Amino acid sequence: MDPIARTPDPPYYVTIFTSLRTSGDHGYDEMAAAMETLSAQQPGFLGMESAREGVGLTLCYWRDLESIRLWRQHVDHAEARRLGRERWYSEYRVRIARVEREYGG
Amino acid sequence: MDPIARTPDPPYYVTIFTSLRTSGDHGYDEMAAAMETLSAQQPGFLGMESAREGVGLTLCYWRDLESIRLWRQHVDHAEARRLGRERWYSEYRVRIARVEREYGG
Repeated sequence: MDPIARTPDPPYYVTIFTSLRTSGDHGYDEMAAAMETLSAQQPGFLGMESAREGVGLTLCYWRDLESIRLWRQHVDHAEARRLGRERWYSEYRVRIARVEREYGG
Repeated sequence: MDPIARTPDPPYYVTIFTSLRTSGDHGYDEMAAAMETLSAQQPGFLGMESAREGVGLTLCYWRDLESIRLWRQHVDHAEARRLGRERWYSEYRVRIARVEREYGG
């Protein structure tokens, strides 16, 4: 995956997942890789950017709110979120935002 | 700074800065620390989250678009952006988005 997502002209949406991990793996790496692959196959997926350095930041770009809603309802994603709350994250925030401008160099 | 920003109830705005660095420091660390301190002093600043792991992600949360516009016009920030384009970043994207929902655990 390209480290900088190739997104279309705005508007589109982004889900911002900010997290602090618990210690140990407990199946995290395997599930994170599976979710990255699966999310990229969903309708309306536009790209992903992520980095962890103390805090973890995962940004997923989506065509519209309906695409985000459908991915949220995916049964494997629901199970991953349940395990995340139970095992992997000591704290997290999810923010959903509408991208209005984009530029770069 | 708290690694997970303590933002108010939406709506508010976020600037998402995604970047790939050139090799070497060339004054980057000093300028990055100065910009982190200075941005947090600006009117409408709500918080910041950042991580670099291959790609760098810096999220700044703002009360409104006017706050983002004023920070963009700050002379020291304009100079930092100029040096960034010239020396520090091989590639970058800036996205401005309106946060509509937030939840966590």
